[in-house]
Amino acid sequence: MKKIAVIMGSDSDMPVVQKAIDVLDEYGVPYEVHVYSAHRTPEQSREFSLNARQNGFGAIIAAAGKAAHLAGALAANTTLPVIGIPVKSSTLDGLDALLSTVQMPSGIPVATVTIDGAANAALLAIQILSVSDAELAARLDRSRVSASMKVLEKDKAISEKFS
Amino acid sequence: MKKIAVIMGSDSDMPVVQKAIDVLDEYGVPYEVHVYSAHRTPEQSREFSLNARQNGFGAIIAAAGKAAHLAGALAANTTLPVIGIPVKSSTLDGLDALLSTVQMPSGIPVATVTIDGAANAALLAIQILSVSDAELAARLDRSRVSASMKVLEKDKAISEKFS
Amino acid sequence: MKKIAVIMGSDSDMPVVQKAIDVLDEYGVPYEVHVYSAHRTPEQSREFSLNARQNGFGAIIAAAGKAAHLAGALAANTTLPVIGIPVKSSTLDGLDALLSTVQMPSGIPVATVTIDGAANAALLAIQILSVSDAELAARLDRSRVSASMKVLEKDKAISEKFS
Amino acid sequence: MKKIAVIMGSDSDMPVVQKAIDVLDEYGVPYEVHVYSAHRTPEQSREFSLNARQNGFGAIIAAAGKAAHLAGALAANTTLPVIGIPVKSSTLDGLDALLSTVQMPSGIPVATVTIDGAANAALLAIQILSVSDAELAARLDRSRVSASMKVLEKDKAISEKFS
Amino acid sequence: MKKIAVIMGSDSDMPVVQKAIDVLDEYGVPYEVHVYSAHRTPEQSREFSLNARQNGFGAIIAAAGKAAHLAGALAANTTLPVIGIPVKSSTLDGLDALLSTVQMPSGIPVATVTIDGAANAALLAIQILSVSDAELAARLDRSRVSASMKVLEKDKAISEKFS
Amino acid sequence: MKKIAVIMGSDSDMPVVQKAIDVLDEYGVPYEVHVYSAHRTPEQSREFSLNARQNGFGAIIAAAGKAAHLAGALAANTTLPVIGIPVKSSTLDGLDALLSTVQMPSGIPVATVTIDGAANAALLAIQILSVSDAELAARLDRSRVSASMKVLEKDKAISEKFS
Amino acid sequence: MKKIAVIMGSDSDMPVVQKAIDVLDEYGVPYEVHVYSAHRTPEQSREFSLNARQNGFGAIIAAAGKAAHLAGALAANTTLPVIGIPVKSSTLDGLDALLSTVQMPSGIPVATVTIDGAANAALLAIQILSVSDAELAARLDRSRVSASMKVLEKDKAISEKFS
Amino acid sequence: MKKIAVIMGSDSDMPVVQKAIDVLDEYGVPYEVHVYSAHRTPEQSREFSLNARQNGFGAIIAAAGKAAHLAGALAANTTLPVIGIPVKSSTLDGLDALLSTVQMPSGIPVATVTIDGAANAALLAIQILSVSDAELAARLDRSRVSASMKVLEKDKAISEKFS
Repeated sequence: MKKIAVIMGSDSDMPVVQKAIDVLDEYGVPYEVHVYSAHRTPEQSREFSLNARQNGFGAIIAAAGKAAHLAGALAANTTLPVIGIPVKSSTLDGLDALLSTVQMPSGIPVATVTIDGAANAALLAIQILSVSDAELAARLDRSRVSASMKVLEKDKAISEKFS
Repeated sequence: MKKIAVIMGSDSDMPVVQKAIDVLDEYGVPYEVHVYSAHRTPEQSREFSLNARQNGFGAIIAAAGKAAHLAGALAANTTLPVIGIPVKSSTLDGLDALLSTVQMPSGIPVATVTIDGAANAALLAIQILSVSDAELAARLDRSRVSASMKVLEKDKAISEKFS
Repeated sequence: MKKIAVIMGSDSDMPVVQKAIDVLDEYGVPYEVHVYSAHRTPEQSREFSLNARQNGFGAIIAAAGKAAHLAGALAANTTLPVIGIPVKSSTLDGLDALLSTVQMPSGIPVATVTIDGAANAALLAIQILSVSDAELAARLDRSRVSASMKVLEKDKAISEKFS
Repeated sequence: MKKIAVIMGSDSDMPVVQKAIDVLDEYGVPYEVHVYSAHRTPEQSREFSLNARQNGFGAIIAAAGKAAHLAGALAANTTLPVIGIPVKSSTLDGLDALLSTVQMPSGIPVATVTIDGAANAALLAIQILSVSDAELAARLDRSRVSASMKVLEKDKAISEKFS
Repeated sequence: MKKIAVIMGSDSDMPVVQKAIDVLDEYGVPYEVHVYSAHRTPEQSREFSLNARQNGFGAIIAAAGKAAHLAGALAANTTLPVIGIPVKSSTLDGLDALLSTVQMPSGIPVATVTIDGAANAALLAIQILSVSDAELAARLDRSRVSASMKVLEKDKAISEKFS
Repeated sequence: MKKIAVIMGSDSDMPVVQKAIDVLDEYGVPYEVHVYSAHRTPEQSREFSLNARQNGFGAIIAAAGKAAHLAGALAANTTLPVIGIPVKSSTLDGLDALLSTVQMPSGIPVATVTIDGAANAALLAIQILSVSDAELAARLDRSRVSASMKVLEKDKAISEKFS
Repeated sequence: MKKIAVIMGSDSDMPVVQKAIDVLDEYGVPYEVHVYSAHRTPEQSREFSLNARQNGFGAIIAAAGKAAHLAGALAANTTLPVIGIPVKSSTLDGLDALLSTVQMPSGIPVATVTIDGAANAALLAIQILSVSDAELAARLDRSRVSASMKVLEKDKAISEKFS
Repeated sequence: MKKIAVIMGSDSDMPVVQKAIDVLDEYGVPYEVHVYSAHRTPEQSREFSLNARQNGFGAIIAAAGKAAHLAGALAANTTLPVIGIPVKSSTLDGLDALLSTVQMPSGIPVATVTIDGAANAALLAIQILSVSDAELAARLDRSRVSASMKVLEKDKAISEKFS
């Protein structure tokens, strides 16, 4: 199975990123986690990204805040799908990271998810792998059913409470 | 090869969506184009999405404006990767479509691209297929080199003009 | 009397939604409360909405955050008035939920109220019922007078304190 | 049948408001159209609103731009449902009118629709009347089916064109 | 000397408004404080405003949050200068109140100050009175000099600390 | 009678500012018009402002775009009321000028009006003079009545057209 | 004299960038112009930036739109001052480029100027060179005087016209 | 060596500004720290700025919040590079300060850094001095390497933890 790369721009993004790792663990999808900064270790970001496909990766998740260039910088050096998690920081409520991640120029897409949406980033990565992996697809489907069931239980509890 | 679905919420989105179709044509990736509205034909959106994987699709591209629910509504009924194109409409400069597309709740990711970024949506879909298709990966890489060359030529022209 | 449906996208919206329930209790208007997610239980949302009018509902209140599609998804399957409460979440201060709720395409209106404005949503639902219910109209009017009196008392207290 | 009031803050809003009138005409719902300004003719706004229910109105539609107070000012003097249309003006792309219309204080709701969304405002007014008018409800449902059919036709045309 | 009216839309605005009262006390300018709501006590707002000039007021300060209509509603019924204080509430960081206060239509100005800027509102009211009151003008000038001196002292302290 | 100063940051603001001059002409209020830039002619701005009160001015109107410092710079050197007109320029739809004008620090108010709201700025200046000028107050009141009448006429025309 | 590098992310930015070149020509400061894309020619951007100081550059100007990473990517590979020009594109009115350029992480500053502010970028570059070049400083000062004179002339023309 | 001026608009900005001072101390670059307010001590701001170059300064750092005019006011009176730090205050999350600092008119640039980005402001000032100071350039480069090393260590720790 292809691996998923989980890259964060700074180790201060770890609390956000942990939710992606939890989802990957839950699905048993192999992954690597790295701290690469588009600005402080541009060389390492570049090297990793250039070689990601031949190193067995199927998708790259990149989390960064503020002028969040990490996902775009990785995407510039690979044609693997790159998933961007805009991270909320101390000002502007995540809007800066969202626009810096999603508004990519024509030719270099970044698949952007919800601000701080690390679980969704991991799920999207697994969905990408599932395109050619029927077992993974089945597990995703089962997980959806299970999430559905939880909502239905909550609905039952709350609707009964108020009736 | 898996097919790509290109769905638009209204046929008025066609000028934006055409750029996605052009890219898919360029790569020779098979696709279907549909007009499904999350609000006006919710049943058809749902049916399409529920059966997309078994109907041979590998990814779904959805373009919508304003309170752009289309990508999310499709994503709710499939575990295939769904790519959202926020479409700019007559007010708010695309911000409404962007937030309505990208800010999905945990569990149901939408891979959001640039506002009006239909070419990037198609490229992302092809990149997703390329994860298990080495030939497609090679073509994407060649295309990057070619895009690079064009920029280098423009650089040459402009840098010489001003030297 | 017609019933009011109070739907929330997640049980984490309960603290916001409780204010709507309190107002409905205060007016003695019958209601049902449900947790239906546009994305996690789309089928249930759809079923509920399709049958709401024949099941005796007069209006539907829907509360959701982020890319708040719930109100729109319900509105797509009923011609009953649907009232949307945009719920503020951890990023973007409610702007994402507001735009996702209010910017509906032509043909499918959602009656949007203040961000986190559950009391106003319930009042609007009661006002809708009051169009054909003179007694309810009279009670709404009396409640306005009473709210007015409270402001006048506060005015009296504060204006005297500073004179 | 109850009448619908269509109020605009300035006759310059007429091009936007016309779409509401067209929808009301289409449904044969009786209405009155007025130009009342919350700031330039506050007395007339107030008189109209205070007496609207006893004058046979079932809902009030109010369209205004910029610091759009009209809907709120009308809502302050009636417990009929008041529907606000935020009108885009020359600056800020409608955001000022949206926030001025929707962010009402607790106790005085305004049912806010899409920026410049006059057709939706009229539909919402008709939906409100439909709560106690089965025939109107049936017509709204038929109209939804017809809108659905149009989208399906467009889907057919476009999907065939690209297959 | 003319009086200043200090009106707030809700007694919950008192912590913000207190700073205006403190400044008026400091200058010995007479004032009245009221809680009038544009939406809950529109009649009282209107009466107050209609009679404010003949009742000896020289300016009206109005503080309100969210869809802050209070200043505009008062301005609609008087040609005295009306000063608006946009009050930050629980969502949107004061932007809603700012736009609702400042974006008034042509013909009915509201003199808008900083979000939560009650001290500035009071100073502006006093500056307005100072146009025909040389003594007040002199006091304002002295106060500026004194504020200047305080900054100079802080500059001295800090510049010495770091030299 | 005190004069009104009308200052613009650049002669490109003249089309906006002209509306202020028209209003002042209409009321026969004396005025001076200047082009002073907070950044390009700071010395002249400062000199003008420092001496404005003793030179017979009663209020200063300042129009500027982008990082609109002009009103604040003038306000820093006078205790006369300074009225700021935020001018929309080629980017950001006037939001930059609005925030730069209205968000003044405590101690130095700027009375901010609508973006591009030059007529309102002039009316506010006249309202300020009217505090000690009963004749001007009476003229402002008459003008309000006349504006009211125009709206009433439009209401009559439009309400009849649709009845 | 050190050279200034003028880099644009796409040749479509040329109309904006031309104003920077005009200013550099006016001052006779040597420069080079390049089209380097952070995403399409990352290698060239990196090479240029890594060697810029030893190749005789004193500052780098970078213009880019949307998720404008160019200035930051250049800044990551040099400790020369990098000046960022956010370029307005077809959506979001330049806000995306502004936030992507200015919100850089700690350690890697980008000196950001006005949206589309190419003339200011060139002036800032010349001001940087002027720190160790008294003649350039003198020319900048003379230019300021001359700009001042032009404003004074416009002030004279306009103030006379209205007196 | 040229000195760096660190100016703040209010001593309440000291916690933000301290990070700039720490960086200057770390590099041993001489500096002065001042509290000058564009609005409360405009004369001192002006004097300082007019004489800054001849007093041996090489760059001015200015930190201010809200309608942050300080950097622009200083830039109006000097042709030295002026670096603006937008400071986040109690409302609007720093957006007001950012736009007031960066959106300068043509002719008077301000080199704007990240909201609250005082460390980056100091680094930018040192980078400016480094243009003519090879030793400083070398130290900046070494510091980059060291920052790089720290990220690499964090990468090592985190990547090992998850492998």
